[in-house]
Amino acid sequence: MAGKAVKGNMIIGQSGGPTAVINQSLIGAVTEAFKHKEISNVYGMLNGIDGILEDRIIDFGKEDKKQLLKVAQTPAAALGSCRHKPTEEECETIFEKLKKLDVRYFFYNGGNDTAETAHIINEIAKKRDYELRIFHIPKTIDNDLRETDHCPGYASAAKYVAMCFMGNNMDNIALPGIKIDVVMGRHAGWLTAASSLATTQGVDGPHLIYVPERPISLSDFTKQVLDTYEKYGRALVAVSEGLKTPDGKLMIESKLTEKDSHGNVQLSGSGMMGDFLVQAVKDAAGSKKLRVRSDTLGYAQRSFPGIYSEIDAKEAWMVGQNAVKYALSGNIDGSVILQRVSDGAKYKSKTALTELSKVAKHTKDLPVDFMNEEGNYVSSKFLDYAKPIVGPIPELGVLKKIRI
Amino acid sequence: MAGKAVKGNMIIGQSGGPTAVINQSLIGAVTEAFKHKEISNVYGMLNGIDGILEDRIIDFGKEDKKQLLKVAQTPAAALGSCRHKPTEEECETIFEKLKKLDVRYFFYNGGNDTAETAHIINEIAKKRDYELRIFHIPKTIDNDLRETDHCPGYASAAKYVAMCFMGNNMDNIALPGIKIDVVMGRHAGWLTAASSLATTQGVDGPHLIYVPERPISLSDFTKQVLDTYEKYGRALVAVSEGLKTPDGKLMIESKLTEKDSHGNVQLSGSGMMGDFLVQAVKDAAGSKKLRVRSDTLGYAQRSFPGIYSEIDAKEAWMVGQNAVKYALSGNIDGSVILQRVSDGAKYKSKTALTELSKVAKHTKDLPVDFMNEEGNYVSSKFLDYAKPIVGPIPELGVLKKIRI
Repeated sequence: MAGKAVKGNMIIGQSGGPTAVINQSLIGAVTEAFKHKEISNVYGMLNGIDGILEDRIIDFGKEDKKQLLKVAQTPAAALGSCRHKPTEEECETIFEKLKKLDVRYFFYNGGNDTAETAHIINEIAKKRDYELRIFHIPKTIDNDLRETDHCPGYASAAKYVAMCFMGNNMDNIALPGIKIDVVMGRHAGWLTAASSLATTQGVDGPHLIYVPERPISLSDFTKQVLDTYEKYGRALVAVSEGLKTPDGKLMIESKLTEKDSHGNVQLSGSGMMGDFLVQAVKDAAGSKKLRVRSDTLGYAQRSFPGIYSEIDAKEAWMVGQNAVKYALSGNIDGSVILQRVSDGAKYKSKTALTELSKVAKHTKDLPVDFMNEEGNYVSSKFLDYAKPIVGPIPELGVLKKIRI
Repeated sequence: MAGKAVKGNMIIGQSGGPTAVINQSLIGAVTEAFKHKEISNVYGMLNGIDGILEDRIIDFGKEDKKQLLKVAQTPAAALGSCRHKPTEEECETIFEKLKKLDVRYFFYNGGNDTAETAHIINEIAKKRDYELRIFHIPKTIDNDLRETDHCPGYASAAKYVAMCFMGNNMDNIALPGIKIDVVMGRHAGWLTAASSLATTQGVDGPHLIYVPERPISLSDFTKQVLDTYEKYGRALVAVSEGLKTPDGKLMIESKLTEKDSHGNVQLSGSGMMGDFLVQAVKDAAGSKKLRVRSDTLGYAQRSFPGIYSEIDAKEAWMVGQNAVKYALSGNIDGSVILQRVSDGAKYKSKTALTELSKVAKHTKDLPVDFMNEEGNYVSSKFLDYAKPIVGPIPELGVLKKIRI
């Protein structure tokens, strides 16, 4: 739907897990907003919709412009984030507060839960006939949003994961053993699949990659790991934190207790999954004394400063900036998506709009053909997809090791 | 002791945990060795002394010179490492093999266990009146070697740790809660102390830093963490994996099972310590539902590619290069150490030689006055020590957050 630009204030917020480039989207949107006379004030909600509910709102007009560019390059959500899924009643309150603040432009930067919140507030505004432009600006290191080719934040996290695996692979060659690295991703294996980008230099790890989309029994897992160790004298294994068994349950279902307000169980911020798999491999190895270790890559995947994909940073800025442009050029609502433009060898992308409801709630799995048949490694299709958006990764040097 | 340079072959090996710059030392030594006609062949032992025992020895003369410079910039031990502490009998075998290979120059790159091995082989050579020049080239991210001002590898790991904490601090501001990050360091808190370098930008985390040198009871730990949370509405905590209780036992003593051949218990490559502390804090919080998470920083601390201190890389090259120079200028044996040269504001360092026995076996703790009185944060003395060798860290941007 299209209508004329309305005059009023703008508000922007961030929600869900941070990323290395989420602030690019924030500052991209804010910088664009400053250019338009239809937007009187540019507000920021602290900790997402909690900032509206609790009247914690800041004025971007009072920020230092040079500092804003530094903020763009800083990981994690500069406005603060939240994981609060508002009730219908809270959405009503949010709507009333927005109206009182004369907010006519509402931008919410986050994943599918964030898109859902935006969608609900949008429905209320429509019912009340209040002219409110609502846009979802996508971000998630999980890369599991529908409609978009990929999500801002993913490629930078993918680069961090790939570099971590490059280092861990060299480490595993130096001190051979079985190493299991647990990667973020509760539903989708996009980020875990990125561990394969470490192999571009002719080094061979990770040898096995397991994702939630391809369930595996614990006994098959340990068998494949031990077979790989037998073959190479070492094994580097990438596992999604949300890896499932064939009955559809999480591999570590029995060990989990805590759920967030969206009903998600807590998987990150714990070494449980890795330690569980290490013990399982040791048990399966029986009397053989193997060196089995695990690392859980942790929050550094989404917030390590200085490691980001250049393309990701540019695209994150672009989705923020274009969300504002869409809102000002008469669009009523939507989620900004990225589309890959085929242009010969060189990667290019552009933005487009899709309906909020199409992005809300649901997630997007890693396609079946992005993995091999056995479901324990990526296919070349995944590499073709991921390499252009992740961009160059540091080259490593290896010895020829010619024996005397 | 000094004597004339002897003609023969050289061998070099790497031992212990990898670092981001250990290959700088390797290539620094090899490159220097190529310049001297007294050294006929430059050999490399694969996986340290195991390579000698198992006849897995490579010829550096057959390596591509350009590739060697890339190897220098690649983390983890390019020759492969080992944690093998040889028996007296094995040391005899090693000595015999070295003699047969006409090795007159022996360089072993590693920590205090490595220095000890070098020392034992040295004693055998002396007894047999075989002219062998033996030098220990220091490396360890733990920074716990005696005699040297600091260890090559430490500053790069410190930079990675500092950057991890910078990102985790931004993440913790964005999604407040209690975050406990476990840092490598079984005996000494040098690396954990480096988490404080994240605060140089005016951001406030980590709030608490715990090291093995300053034991604390679990109940005091949880109390201090909860008090900090009460005060700031969040808490970022740095903990050494080797943190001890006042009775001298490891905080997670009861949960450990595995020991390596040097008698050390396995602490790294597991999320156990973090998960243990998270549960303890949750238990202490009682009915209060707090968001408590942990990350164990993992092997990325010693092998993440591309994140290193420029000074560390240069010094690592220098200790390797100068080990060869010392050997060729008539020195018989020793460990190469780094000395800080006071030169006004600008940091400078030089190398010197010390006796192998002075570096072997023992470790160096974080000095008492490098921590505050309470033992839960660093002092300015630590910052003065660490900042020059770690070098610049990326700057972050923060919002002023002026409310409407």
